[in-house]
Amino acid sequence: MPEFLHLISPSEALEKMLDTLPQSWAADSEIVSTYEAHGRILAERVSAPHPLPPFPRSTVDGYAVQAKDTFGASGALPAYLRLIGEILMGKAPTLEVHPGETAQVHTGGTIPDGANAVVMLEDTQLIDSDEIEVHRAAGVGQNILMEGEDVQQGDVVLEPGTLLRPQEIGGLLALGMTSVSVAASPQVGILSSGDEVVPPEMEPGPAQVRDINSHTLSVLIERLGGKPILRGIIPDQRDTLFEAVKLSHQEDDLIVITAGSSVSARDITGDVIQSLGKPGVLVHGISIKPGKPTILAIADDIPLIGLPGNPVSALVVGALILAPLIRRFLGVRRVLPIPQVPARLSVNVVSQSGREDFLPVRLQNSEEGYIAEPVFGRSNLIFTLVQADGLIHIPSSATGLSAGTEVMVTLFSSEL
Amino acid sequence: MPEFLHLISPSEALEKMLDTLPQSWAADSEIVSTYEAHGRILAERVSAPHPLPPFPRSTVDGYAVQAKDTFGASGALPAYLRLIGEILMGKAPTLEVHPGETAQVHTGGTIPDGANAVVMLEDTQLIDSDEIEVHRAAGVGQNILMEGEDVQQGDVVLEPGTLLRPQEIGGLLALGMTSVSVAASPQVGILSSGDEVVPPEMEPGPAQVRDINSHTLSVLIERLGGKPILRGIIPDQRDTLFEAVKLSHQEDDLIVITAGSSVSARDITGDVIQSLGKPGVLVHGISIKPGKPTILAIADDIPLIGLPGNPVSALVVGALILAPLIRRFLGVRRVLPIPQVPARLSVNVVSQSGREDFLPVRLQNSEEGYIAEPVFGRSNLIFTLVQADGLIHIPSSATGLSAGTEVMVTLFSSEL
Repeated sequence: MPEFLHLISPSEALEKMLDTLPQSWAADSEIVSTYEAHGRILAERVSAPHPLPPFPRSTVDGYAVQAKDTFGASGALPAYLRLIGEILMGKAPTLEVHPGETAQVHTGGTIPDGANAVVMLEDTQLIDSDEIEVHRAAGVGQNILMEGEDVQQGDVVLEPGTLLRPQEIGGLLALGMTSVSVAASPQVGILSSGDEVVPPEMEPGPAQVRDINSHTLSVLIERLGGKPILRGIIPDQRDTLFEAVKLSHQEDDLIVITAGSSVSARDITGDVIQSLGKPGVLVHGISIKPGKPTILAIADDIPLIGLPGNPVSALVVGALILAPLIRRFLGVRRVLPIPQVPARLSVNVVSQSGREDFLPVRLQNSEEGYIAEPVFGRSNLIFTLVQADGLIHIPSSATGLSAGTEVMVTLFSSEL
Repeated sequence: MPEFLHLISPSEALEKMLDTLPQSWAADSEIVSTYEAHGRILAERVSAPHPLPPFPRSTVDGYAVQAKDTFGASGALPAYLRLIGEILMGKAPTLEVHPGETAQVHTGGTIPDGANAVVMLEDTQLIDSDEIEVHRAAGVGQNILMEGEDVQQGDVVLEPGTLLRPQEIGGLLALGMTSVSVAASPQVGILSSGDEVVPPEMEPGPAQVRDINSHTLSVLIERLGGKPILRGIIPDQRDTLFEAVKLSHQEDDLIVITAGSSVSARDITGDVIQSLGKPGVLVHGISIKPGKPTILAIADDIPLIGLPGNPVSALVVGALILAPLIRRFLGVRRVLPIPQVPARLSVNVVSQSGREDFLPVRLQNSEEGYIAEPVFGRSNLIFTLVQADGLIHIPSSATGLSAGTEVMVTLFSSEL
């Protein structure tokens, strides 16, 4: 317990970062094709240039009528109307419905002038080519979608900061907006430090290992809406690391450093971050497992995150801190809760009070629903993480969870 | 109730499709760069070409020792060891630890020959440049990650059908696999029929509306791992539609037609689908709202989906049917449950027994958690859907849900 007592919680750490960042730390906007804008964040307010639907439309197949002509109509006592024609799809109606008249109309077809209701096909009987029986009365407006019933001309339909999902893309295109202003993605510099680390495409020598974290983080950052910039593997030397971080500081919007795992490498990283700009290191250690040795800093308006070297820590802390930072940069207006899967814990797990634990679990299907089996294994093993479907969060107030407890699992395949 | 009684449920409809599709309806494989393989489905079995870690590593900063030399050591009665050097990161050790000797080692550093445990730095005291005190006994293997502890050489680490998440990408790269065989994306032909429909970039004439569904479906299909092919807007004429569908049938792996909404347009679509190949239409109508007039067919081993014209139906049925079809094509091995958000319903909602309802809701934060407010509005209005955060599912056995009921909300921003 003592080792976590002097550390701040992940949410406090994040709040400190967000509070210290200036308002100017925000995305520029860029114009993109609406067809390719899925997942982007809108950077403009969109008003409807015309109403939707642009004309009154029938919601059924049937006959456009003047409602009063059907008053009291029933199977026993039908109303008789003169059929004056058919409204063709995609063509402006050339006829007008007068009292005692009707025109055939299809679902989605335009309501002709004079008509104020549509009688469903099922409630009619065609008597001959120019006359129908109506077996049910229609009220004014019945089976009609009014002009502007979805949106009126000039209505604000989308606010800046809106996530563009399939329906927003559809809405923009329905209004003819084939290009749209969105927040430009933050450029996230990723630096990997460590004398023992080589790129994946290299054959490691004895005592060397391949870089994993740059690439898992790169994937995560893309999924969160950022643009990862791989700034390479940097030796654990102060000056070399300083120069590399300085370059990233000049060019990127956000910097992530995965530190070498030794004390001296961590010290070098902390020192480099501190000397880069004001105010420097804000958080040195978070009460979280995995991820305790995380460093959060701001240097001259650019946020920096120093992540522990092991892959689970990098992914957990990366997501917990990076996701809200990137959302802030993009100007996201509405943050929805993280969808999760309920499951029951298969075994007792212990946890330290005062520390937030994130435990990798694998889901097993059972008759009573999903069972979450902790994937025990050292957190610095990448294939331990491959076995896991998601994480459960054990809050800092808990000292553990008993077998059978209902837990909520955040899947790795969705966002943390 | 009667109108849904003769229809089959969405899951029965899907099962019928999946059971009728031949085993040959499956993705080819293609080689891609592992760096760009996120979200793809693995098409090969991957075995480890070498162990991970490739050499025994220290998990702490400290001193590599022979465990027996620390037996009984304590603060009061330290063990004394001769310091023979430092293991440099990324370099093969040139020294060997003999009885009574120790070498300094960093986290992640190689365990030198002769040593079988690491004493943590905190449990030692440097006496002079070539001698340390050890204040705590170390067991054999303590603070050491053994060679192959993550994976042994030859271990099968990933099976075909595995979704490649950040950790799988990391695992592949840790093993030096910079390219990987994945399932090729199914090419999904999208046809939009309707005489009143024009492309979004066109100014609609009177009685015309812009195409939405092709584009919302296109976005959805990409998110599900398919490759959408827009095959245009087809007039409601049998021969023209037949030719367009035939072309898609020759070139695509899966065909989606969003039908014109009138009875005659639906009849033409059904007729074209039926005449395209054997066995033809399998399902004509599903007990679901929205989405009832869905057509499912297989024509000479190619599945076809005829979707109702309104945007909510297209997205709901699209996701419910398309997602599992695409997973089957890609050979996905392990299907995880859909993560959801628990919320309480704000009002009573009615539903028909025998029908599965999907109701768009908006989430509101409250002190007691999230409230799901149904977004009432006609299902053919795209901006109704823009107001919604997700869907709740009302099972066919229910006749409605009371205000305050706990419901699970599937967010539109994740997959259905």
